[in-house]
Amino acid sequence: MSAPHPAVFDRQCMARALQLAKRGLYTTDPNPRVGCVIAHNGQVLAEGWHQRAGEGHAEANALAVAGDAARGATAYVTLEPCSHFGRTAPCCDALITAGVARVWVAMTDPNPLVAGSGIERLREAGIEVACGLLEDQARALNPGFIKRMERARPFVRLKLAMSLDGRTAMASGESQWITGPEARRDVQRLRARSSAIITGVESILADDSALTLRAEQLGLAEAEAICRRQPRRVVLDSDLRTPPSARVLQGQGATLVACAAGADPLRRQALEAAGAELIELPREGDGLALEPLLAALAQRECNEVLLETGATLAGAAVAAGLVDELVIYMAPLLMGSDARPLLRLPIATMAEGRELEIVDMRALGRDWRITARPRTDGNG
Amino acid sequence: MSAPHPAVFDRQCMARALQLAKRGLYTTDPNPRVGCVIAHNGQVLAEGWHQRAGEGHAEANALAVAGDAARGATAYVTLEPCSHFGRTAPCCDALITAGVARVWVAMTDPNPLVAGSGIERLREAGIEVACGLLEDQARALNPGFIKRMERARPFVRLKLAMSLDGRTAMASGESQWITGPEARRDVQRLRARSSAIITGVESILADDSALTLRAEQLGLAEAEAICRRQPRRVVLDSDLRTPPSARVLQGQGATLVACAAGADPLRRQALEAAGAELIELPREGDGLALEPLLAALAQRECNEVLLETGATLAGAAVAAGLVDELVIYMAPLLMGSDARPLLRLPIATMAEGRELEIVDMRALGRDWRITARPRTDGNG
Repeated sequence: MSAPHPAVFDRQCMARALQLAKRGLYTTDPNPRVGCVIAHNGQVLAEGWHQRAGEGHAEANALAVAGDAARGATAYVTLEPCSHFGRTAPCCDALITAGVARVWVAMTDPNPLVAGSGIERLREAGIEVACGLLEDQARALNPGFIKRMERARPFVRLKLAMSLDGRTAMASGESQWITGPEARRDVQRLRARSSAIITGVESILADDSALTLRAEQLGLAEAEAICRRQPRRVVLDSDLRTPPSARVLQGQGATLVACAAGADPLRRQALEAAGAELIELPREGDGLALEPLLAALAQRECNEVLLETGATLAGAAVAAGLVDELVIYMAPLLMGSDARPLLRLPIATMAEGRELEIVDMRALGRDWRITARPRTDGNG
Repeated sequence: MSAPHPAVFDRQCMARALQLAKRGLYTTDPNPRVGCVIAHNGQVLAEGWHQRAGEGHAEANALAVAGDAARGATAYVTLEPCSHFGRTAPCCDALITAGVARVWVAMTDPNPLVAGSGIERLREAGIEVACGLLEDQARALNPGFIKRMERARPFVRLKLAMSLDGRTAMASGESQWITGPEARRDVQRLRARSSAIITGVESILADDSALTLRAEQLGLAEAEAICRRQPRRVVLDSDLRTPPSARVLQGQGATLVACAAGADPLRRQALEAAGAELIELPREGDGLALEPLLAALAQRECNEVLLETGATLAGAAVAAGLVDELVIYMAPLLMGSDARPLLRLPIATMAEGRELEIVDMRALGRDWRITARPRTDGNG
């Protein structure tokens, strides 16, 4: 076999760096998932990826493996190397010190305040830099980090489970086990990649759900390590009906309870005493305004948030244009026309219908997972 | 490359015979789709398939190509060769006369009156016969023919179009163009493989649909040949509101109008004069009983019938267990909770929910086609 064309080799290296970045899918939060490959003369010398906030960045990890061999080599990085001191030293300095000759970057830093500064710094040091290789895939790795940097909001994922005829529960409310075990395990993984899980007080009152990740439910080899970071739990609770003994306030991980202005101060105190952070939100419709909640979560470094709410709040979020992605678990079942709708979403004419784009469709046991996003091409 | 193992070669030949059979998908009606391969010493000598009722059967077509070379060869046939005189001479006799040494049959004749008789006849003539190779695929080719032979009923396919949230039209009735051109073309192909298309008088009154296949809408090379056979059009019309001038009564192909007993004899006469066949059905619910209609269609040699009706009749057909397959075109769109349901299907408890199995899922442009069947494994 002859060596691949240099451009093909470049793509292979960046594709590998993207694979490495993905290893941090469940653990880098609030940092982005980043991967790095170092190669020279058509040979891969070292690989690295960012694993956990506070630990080594992808570039530093790869450079540590490469050692002196990095001199004159090419580094492939899925995100523009940082040029500022954070919890670790700037990666640009490390690449310069190691003497790499070229740096391929998949995407620039989404933070408008620093975008391009890393690339500039590398170029000033005489390193050849090119940007944009496999950029779409690189952006897809970090939808939440990118949205938070660009727009000071988290990426909002709405999780729903429905029958084939678009129903979530019988008219009576009966709904348990619409989907099978593979779909439920996948939901655990959606939670695991999220910075926060948002739910309504109704489900806390009904199920006393803890909303914590449990290693045995993830079905992943590195499940124990993943569960060391628990997503923030957020309860929408206008009138503070959450009992201070609720399981959502216990265990590892922070809990935020959002209430309406003027909620009972005694209840507030009791929840704070039980460990919750409390924030006040304006009322909106039958509930609370979601937009200021999302702003508050972005301030708390939340990248991806998962909405696991009832049909009313989910419908309101869709209607308000706050949902970036719908993940719908569809069970092969007809629940009939009296059953409850997927979303409480009053629409009168086709022109008001919400156009989506189905970006992924996957079988999970007997069920299917549909991933859809609002259409942004102007025809929607 | 060395020759494949004989068992592998046998599978390859039968797989090829199945491919050939599929070429008759739109044209063999009311006959089954059948393919045949003739091979000897690991070499394919001839191929044939049944194209159109009244024309050569698959075996005869393949034997005509093979000529004298068929002597001592193996014939692979997707359906047990016939041993009786129909519109053509029995295929068993042709195989015997040609001197083939072995016949591989994918499935026996589904007609219980003749099943096995072809195999028996071949064996009596000293031919080695084996049965069951790729039987599942062979059965999947002819669901309608098999059901008609086994149970004197056609295979009933229910076609539906819905939004992602399981809605078919706005509350106002507005519904045009939920799905895109690829899905609409696929519907034309569903019609083309059907023996009959069943619709309600409401859609005739609303759209004056002709329900004929049009070559330019099929997007298939052999579209003109396919359109030589038009599926029977069936209108459910309790009170004979179909106007004698309706387009469904014009053009090529038969039209059956089903009415309730005691419908106005003058209207009946007028429709008969316009070319329709009239049959009477018992009333059931708000409409007509479907079960006797299906029996009548089987008597008219209908294999696969396509239900293209409104939500009420479709729901009734599902509730009555008359639907063998649902083909749902799902558009990436939310129509909201006020919109019309997929099926009018009142169900009170999860236990009464209709369990399905999703047997195929396919992207058609922006839309997806879901093919589902009622679960028959006893867990449904």
